[in-house]
Amino acid sequence: MPSEIWQYLDFLGVAVFAATGGLVAARLRQDFIAFLFFCLLTGIGGGTLRDLLLNVPVFWTVNETYLYVCFVVSIAMWFFAHKVEAWGRPLRWLDAIGIAAYSVMGAAKALSLGDNVAVAVLMGVASATFGGILRDVIAGQPSALLQREIYLAAAFAGAITYTATLMTTGDSNLAAGLGFAMALILRGGAIARDWYLPSYAPPETKNADKLD
Amino acid sequence: MPSEIWQYLDFLGVAVFAATGGLVAARLRQDFIAFLFFCLLTGIGGGTLRDLLLNVPVFWTVNETYLYVCFVVSIAMWFFAHKVEAWGRPLRWLDAIGIAAYSVMGAAKALSLGDNVAVAVLMGVASATFGGILRDVIAGQPSALLQREIYLAAAFAGAITYTATLMTTGDSNLAAGLGFAMALILRGGAIARDWYLPSYAPPETKNADKLD
Amino acid sequence: MPSEIWQYLDFLGVAVFAATGGLVAARLRQDFIAFLFFCLLTGIGGGTLRDLLLNVPVFWTVNETYLYVCFVVSIAMWFFAHKVEAWGRPLRWLDAIGIAAYSVMGAAKALSLGDNVAVAVLMGVASATFGGILRDVIAGQPSALLQREIYLAAAFAGAITYTATLMTTGDSNLAAGLGFAMALILRGGAIARDWYLPSYAPPETKNADKLD
Repeated sequence: MPSEIWQYLDFLGVAVFAATGGLVAARLRQDFIAFLFFCLLTGIGGGTLRDLLLNVPVFWTVNETYLYVCFVVSIAMWFFAHKVEAWGRPLRWLDAIGIAAYSVMGAAKALSLGDNVAVAVLMGVASATFGGILRDVIAGQPSALLQREIYLAAAFAGAITYTATLMTTGDSNLAAGLGFAMALILRGGAIARDWYLPSYAPPETKNADKLD
Repeated sequence: MPSEIWQYLDFLGVAVFAATGGLVAARLRQDFIAFLFFCLLTGIGGGTLRDLLLNVPVFWTVNETYLYVCFVVSIAMWFFAHKVEAWGRPLRWLDAIGIAAYSVMGAAKALSLGDNVAVAVLMGVASATFGGILRDVIAGQPSALLQREIYLAAAFAGAITYTATLMTTGDSNLAAGLGFAMALILRGGAIARDWYLPSYAPPETKNADKLD
Repeated sequence: MPSEIWQYLDFLGVAVFAATGGLVAARLRQDFIAFLFFCLLTGIGGGTLRDLLLNVPVFWTVNETYLYVCFVVSIAMWFFAHKVEAWGRPLRWLDAIGIAAYSVMGAAKALSLGDNVAVAVLMGVASATFGGILRDVIAGQPSALLQREIYLAAAFAGAITYTATLMTTGDSNLAAGLGFAMALILRGGAIARDWYLPSYAPPETKNADKLD
């Protein structure tokens, strides 16, 4: 595993997810402890689920630096959330970066533990989306999960791209870069240009099926 | 443990729970990725909780066939959910079969690991109901959990019947069959005939208590 | 670790949290199985999360006495919930005792396993609040989590007080007593006197910032 890229992606994913948690706490006009709670929940939630499912020690019990990252982000958001909000849709873009980073990291950790590709892809998706889902459910906000936009699909695409590239080229730096880019492009397209996938349409409305 | 009955019950439980996830995705008019998500969440959610609580490797990280079962079911539901819906209350009946299968499986896995009967019964209940609870919470649907019908009680009855039969007769095939039947009959009675248990009624309305 | 104080705090935390679960089931006019479910969920939920995160066997799979405690409490609440309700705000006060007990226990268990202080504090908070959060989310009740009152902060204060006292004095009895008292006083102040922390106020409304 490319330890430097991994470590940067890992801190990046935790920090940007933590920032989205702080933005939600700010929108809800919470106290500082709630800022810290949402930063921790969103920042380390996805990676925690990944490690529980992979049956390995949870990453922040091994290296508590991740907790301090969330703590620093919660202080920063307490003072600067209003400035970040002024950027325009910061929550969704930071969330997109977190999804892209974690879709690669989740898959990479599973593969490094010897799990097969199906498990690796699922770990990428679970760790990329679980923190944000927790954040939205507990904050009572509508989750991107059930909306008509590309969200889970971006995490799937990132994890599949990483895994497939690593399997075919063996170049983990290239794989991490391509996977991250793929997820970010798809999720970014959903945010900026309303990209979406076709929805389920029961065939009652099609003539061919009506005649069955 | 009767490895064949176990394996059949296991795939059966995963597949029917996955199918209920696909039905919910279809009702919500979701895209295919959401079908896959709901099939996975509901299909493997209960068994995943069971394995996390029992501190053993999660079953689908050991055997990824379960993931492919969910994938196949999600494709099938994408094309045929409307036909399954035409059967009449398919979601509740498939859910009932899943509950019956998992109430036995959860208890059996705990007992096979040397856990005591109280833990085994609880594992049966947790693994039988957690996937469906997750499905309903995330889909924003009212869960059967809090409604005036037999739901948790069927899982308890199945797990207790399995455990008690195995303890007294030592015949795990008989125990699995009786436990599965007990849970399915009780849950089926709730679906078809509105069976329910008496609710809590505070005794303010009883004369004897009023005189205290 | 002071094994006796620990064990008392542990049973106390499980029993009072279980009682709050029973009170919620009674308010929802549920059947007995739902009483048992809510007692178990609230009673052992926090400690279960703690043990999963710490990667140790879940406490009630090692010692099933905790399950029987919840079972006994569920029977007691089935018969006496109306009498407990007559005390006035019993749910919130019992919840406060549970939070105080678990904020110490969660931190103590993490420290006894060799985890560092940041992890220990987080374990105190997670195990003190998770059972109650689960109870409220599943019951569809507004959680204390997002309300303008001291809730998470009490758990943080209890865990930090315990950890800091133990680190400086080495006296675990003193640490447990001080931590428990600190959390109970803060949470009690929130219940009885509406104590709260300052909320996030974006500086758009401050002159100094407006001129930036």
